[in-house]
Amino acid sequence: MKIIIDAFGGDNAPLEIIKGSALAVKDLGAEIILTGNEAEIKRVASENNISLENIQIEDCDEVITMEDEPIAVRKTKKNSSMAVGFRLLNEGKGDAFISCGNSGALCVGATTIAGRIKGIKRTAFAPVLPSNSGFFMLLDGGANVDARPEMLYQFALMGSVYMERVMGVKNPRIGLANVGTEEHKGNDLYRETFKLLSDSNLNFVGNVEGRDLSEGVCDVVLCDGFTGNLILKTYEGVAITLMKKMKHMFTDSLKGKLAAVLTMKDLKELKKKFDYNQYGGAPILGSAKPVFKAHGDSKAVTIRFAVELSMNYVNGNAIDIISSSLFSGE
Amino acid sequence: MKIIIDAFGGDNAPLEIIKGSALAVKDLGAEIILTGNEAEIKRVASENNISLENIQIEDCDEVITMEDEPIAVRKTKKNSSMAVGFRLLNEGKGDAFISCGNSGALCVGATTIAGRIKGIKRTAFAPVLPSNSGFFMLLDGGANVDARPEMLYQFALMGSVYMERVMGVKNPRIGLANVGTEEHKGNDLYRETFKLLSDSNLNFVGNVEGRDLSEGVCDVVLCDGFTGNLILKTYEGVAITLMKKMKHMFTDSLKGKLAAVLTMKDLKELKKKFDYNQYGGAPILGSAKPVFKAHGDSKAVTIRFAVELSMNYVNGNAIDIISSSLFSGE
Repeated sequence: MKIIIDAFGGDNAPLEIIKGSALAVKDLGAEIILTGNEAEIKRVASENNISLENIQIEDCDEVITMEDEPIAVRKTKKNSSMAVGFRLLNEGKGDAFISCGNSGALCVGATTIAGRIKGIKRTAFAPVLPSNSGFFMLLDGGANVDARPEMLYQFALMGSVYMERVMGVKNPRIGLANVGTEEHKGNDLYRETFKLLSDSNLNFVGNVEGRDLSEGVCDVVLCDGFTGNLILKTYEGVAITLMKKMKHMFTDSLKGKLAAVLTMKDLKELKKKFDYNQYGGAPILGSAKPVFKAHGDSKAVTIRFAVELSMNYVNGNAIDIISSSLFSGE
Repeated sequence: MKIIIDAFGGDNAPLEIIKGSALAVKDLGAEIILTGNEAEIKRVASENNISLENIQIEDCDEVITMEDEPIAVRKTKKNSSMAVGFRLLNEGKGDAFISCGNSGALCVGATTIAGRIKGIKRTAFAPVLPSNSGFFMLLDGGANVDARPEMLYQFALMGSVYMERVMGVKNPRIGLANVGTEEHKGNDLYRETFKLLSDSNLNFVGNVEGRDLSEGVCDVVLCDGFTGNLILKTYEGVAITLMKKMKHMFTDSLKGKLAAVLTMKDLKELKKKFDYNQYGGAPILGSAKPVFKAHGDSKAVTIRFAVELSMNYVNGNAIDIISSSLFSGE
């Protein structure tokens, strides 16, 4: 299987991307196509003794930055590492595409270059977040600032297939983010979505409140992209702030350092548990081809994990299953 | 000054409410009117040796539970401790009303019994949350599931007055919750609100992202009540889950307990810093009289602090100032 990776997306590009690609080749037997400046990729690989075996390079000059408008991927930067990745994906040169770059541009590319699955109204950004009991998918995490009930219903269907086929969650529990658990809660969008989900064959567990997300109340948390993006970033922000405070507590004094030694194992476990980076990638669900957004500050292990998920995405036939469920009305 | 308190709202009623009231009398020189079953209040006070000096009791039988529909406060439970509190407030028997009970019912009471400030379109639930650099107000935290730009603008104005006059924040920074910091981000509601705020005399600092809230990027975070409620509860949920994990780390083993002794001071500080309960109350802004929601699990010290804030609310003439700013078009 061939996975295309944008070598110049994210904060740690290209070094960590190249390292992660080499790890994926070694651990998973993947073949990788890196997009980006070939000379630079070769120089960084050589300087860091990273083998480029089974890694092809597709040379291109430009990079889409975080400041670029999302549409740049289609219009002004067609020779960027991200746009070239999409072109290769479309030409069938690779099976999936991963980038740590500009999320907006990646969503635009996934929707308008790779294209949507037939029948799907909108693509959704679907990050997987850590919780006390494992992980959950937040859907939509910010691809759309508005939503309609039938869009949210389609998101639920796609999230359910993804969690089952790619993340290995049996009969995923779908929850609707809301201000209370009762059926009548929320505005029109949420009340109508509640009805659609209740009438579906999905494993809909009802409305879920913000307070219960971190405990892992369900496997897919459904909401519009505006609210979803604020939930996602608030969730990450609070975890980061608290972890940082804890770190200070354990490093600012001699007593603290001693305490850190004593609790080392638990500390590491806690840090790992709430590392929002650990679940590798957020798929852009609804795209007709597997497209993955890995976190902007991904390290090599995150890239390797994103490759593994992409391979599951392809092997699990998730897109075909989504497509056929749409027409069977499931 | 006389503060009316619902003795039967919240998880720790009536004991912690009575205790907190006695504290407020002693520390702040407040006079308190407790609403609720007189015999029960007297029994609990006597059993716990709490002085009822300067505490009046307004006897009533019913209690609004968390399961009651909000409208119960006006319709079916007019003799409840909450409804009686509103009646006393309206009759001018007290200067402000505090309850730890059903938030929905409290909002309904604040809007329809105490009534709205003339010119204010909607009341808003305005919790104050801890951040790494102090605290901020989330507005609207869930009173309305829909919003219009002019409502959000009025919320901003009220939040600004409250933070300045009650919480002592000079020239409060107003931020608009959004999916990105650029002016054009978000849906129509947020883009139009951005314009209204930019054109106002408020200290508008632009769009703020979820990730920056816990670091204290501004003093008032503005959003619609649906998104606000999910932000509020997600924020609380992640903090609670992480604090619980930390607690386990420090209590589950001998090593952990030793580490806890070593870091005691910092631990206490961290716990205090992120205790979402510490800021006492969420005012129901827009109500023509001061109405406060204290957290459902408030202890005596929280009640005492809520009384202090209520007194600032009254002494700071916050409602008059909001009212006159509305008409001066500020």
